[in-house]
Amino acid sequence: MRRILALAALFALPGFAHADPLPSWNDGDAKAAIVEFVESVTDAAADTYVTPADRIAVFDNDGTLWAEQPVYFQFLYALDKLKEMAAADPSILTSDLLKSAAAGDMKAIAASGTEGMLEIAMVSHSGMATDDFKASVRSWLDTARHPETGMAYDRMIYQPMLELLAYLRDEDFRTFIVSGGGIDFIRVFSQEAYNIPPDQVIGTSGNARYEVADGTPAIMKDPGIFFIDDKEGKPVAIESRLGKRPILAAGNSDGDFQMLEWTTAGDGPRLGLIVHHTDAEREFAYDRDGAVGKLARGLDEAGTRGWLLVDMQDDWATVWPGSR
Amino acid sequence: MRRILALAALFALPGFAHADPLPSWNDGDAKAAIVEFVESVTDAAADTYVTPADRIAVFDNDGTLWAEQPVYFQFLYALDKLKEMAAADPSILTSDLLKSAAAGDMKAIAASGTEGMLEIAMVSHSGMATDDFKASVRSWLDTARHPETGMAYDRMIYQPMLELLAYLRDEDFRTFIVSGGGIDFIRVFSQEAYNIPPDQVIGTSGNARYEVADGTPAIMKDPGIFFIDDKEGKPVAIESRLGKRPILAAGNSDGDFQMLEWTTAGDGPRLGLIVHHTDAEREFAYDRDGAVGKLARGLDEAGTRGWLLVDMQDDWATVWPGSR
Repeated sequence: MRRILALAALFALPGFAHADPLPSWNDGDAKAAIVEFVESVTDAAADTYVTPADRIAVFDNDGTLWAEQPVYFQFLYALDKLKEMAAADPSILTSDLLKSAAAGDMKAIAASGTEGMLEIAMVSHSGMATDDFKASVRSWLDTARHPETGMAYDRMIYQPMLELLAYLRDEDFRTFIVSGGGIDFIRVFSQEAYNIPPDQVIGTSGNARYEVADGTPAIMKDPGIFFIDDKEGKPVAIESRLGKRPILAAGNSDGDFQMLEWTTAGDGPRLGLIVHHTDAEREFAYDRDGAVGKLARGLDEAGTRGWLLVDMQDDWATVWPGSR
Repeated sequence: MRRILALAALFALPGFAHADPLPSWNDGDAKAAIVEFVESVTDAAADTYVTPADRIAVFDNDGTLWAEQPVYFQFLYALDKLKEMAAADPSILTSDLLKSAAAGDMKAIAASGTEGMLEIAMVSHSGMATDDFKASVRSWLDTARHPETGMAYDRMIYQPMLELLAYLRDEDFRTFIVSGGGIDFIRVFSQEAYNIPPDQVIGTSGNARYEVADGTPAIMKDPGIFFIDDKEGKPVAIESRLGKRPILAAGNSDGDFQMLEWTTAGDGPRLGLIVHHTDAEREFAYDRDGAVGKLARGLDEAGTRGWLLVDMQDDWATVWPGSR
């Protein structure tokens, strides 16, 4: 018997007692559509077959792989760091906005818009070596807790999406993050949280510079944005980084629209997937009026474009890891 | 007997009749240093062991993996395309330099410097979809021949370096190109020539834009340079793309200096390798005075930095594939 088990393990016989790859997904149209897509591209006998080298799946991060309410977690890091840095040296608060932010005035921050948020974020996201920035983020993730759930931020990841990532990788997909969030920030936890290594993270990046001080080289994070990986930027970044078009794209907001459009406009079988935040009880419910994660065009056009709308409340049996 | 062979193949027994992984390298210090490095990072019992996820090797392209004389091959493509485009529509020659270039005036081109070469290249490297650009390069590689050797350009690759790439991959390294050349240009042939897929190519890139025309999306190549992947740019691009530091870097010119410096400044075993073009008979001989591929600082400092200088004439038994 032991020998038979060993043989079965060795050859990983197809069709041999498959467990459900998506146990946290309720049986229904969404789960069926995902499984049907994966089977269609991995069946070597089908004309929909896709060679493993071309099995590329791209995932947005905020709101798709982890939560993004009440505001992007990276911004909460930036606020915490700003307060910490201002306590040590108040002279860094060089504008009214920075003073308001350090004082925790969320209304002033909200009123400042994207540009204001970038100004605030830049204080903690530039002027240090990349390695030091990553160490700071790691330390924050280890101690900071979400204001509503009390959970560590890097535990507020979606169990059904973890299963989808693992299912795809088991079927010889490579899984990439394509996020409007900062690439150096995401790389701190992507391996542990999602099993996605740093070189499979694509994101927004600041200016960077090579510097040799006393014979020791470092990559320094400079002020200013180098590339915004959002909206039209997502397909541009995908082409720049991968040189080929994905066959599966998953997002949750209109910032992912072009990534899904680019992915699903290719030849052969394609899957565009939108996580729709419908679950106020277990997570958050928002779409058209979201201050973050606004989803309007995607909702309007998903049907005609053949994209899969995942209803978080109906389609997910569980939300967080370990909560079943 | 057949069964024993099948078993041996199945288990790929370590230490089981290893063939020489570098047959085109002459026995000597260079080959020994490479093998010693690889064995030191793959020996799980040694304190120099490096986990496969961190076995990253980066290679310059021009002059390191393929030839670069009399001038970068990509520039020869740009010149050929300029002539072709000007024959169809002379009005594209909007400057004296472009007119001189289309007329084949190499002296005027040389006098125009890097900026002039960029102006010339931009004509054939912008204003079309990335896919169309790649098709054009593919067609050129299939028909154009090197002015001195008569060889196809993508056959002027170095057999010893192909063996090094394969050896590293066999030892669970991932191999990346980090080139000052254009990323879209290199991706056309990197898979076939080097077995390096498009997502493991890092290079200089032009501006790009997502465009939807009549419902069909495309990535358009726009005029202007987005990122120059040379000198200080190489370590910056490596960090941006990979999020970790390589343990092996190979180059041939001072454009690779910072990449080798960054790589070899890390902790643990590191290998910096410089291909020194010393073989006027089989390839080309140039270093300090090279119009392309200038190597001066690298020659001066290789010894003190512990970098391996590969003498093409002495260390390579053969240069081109199929020429043994």
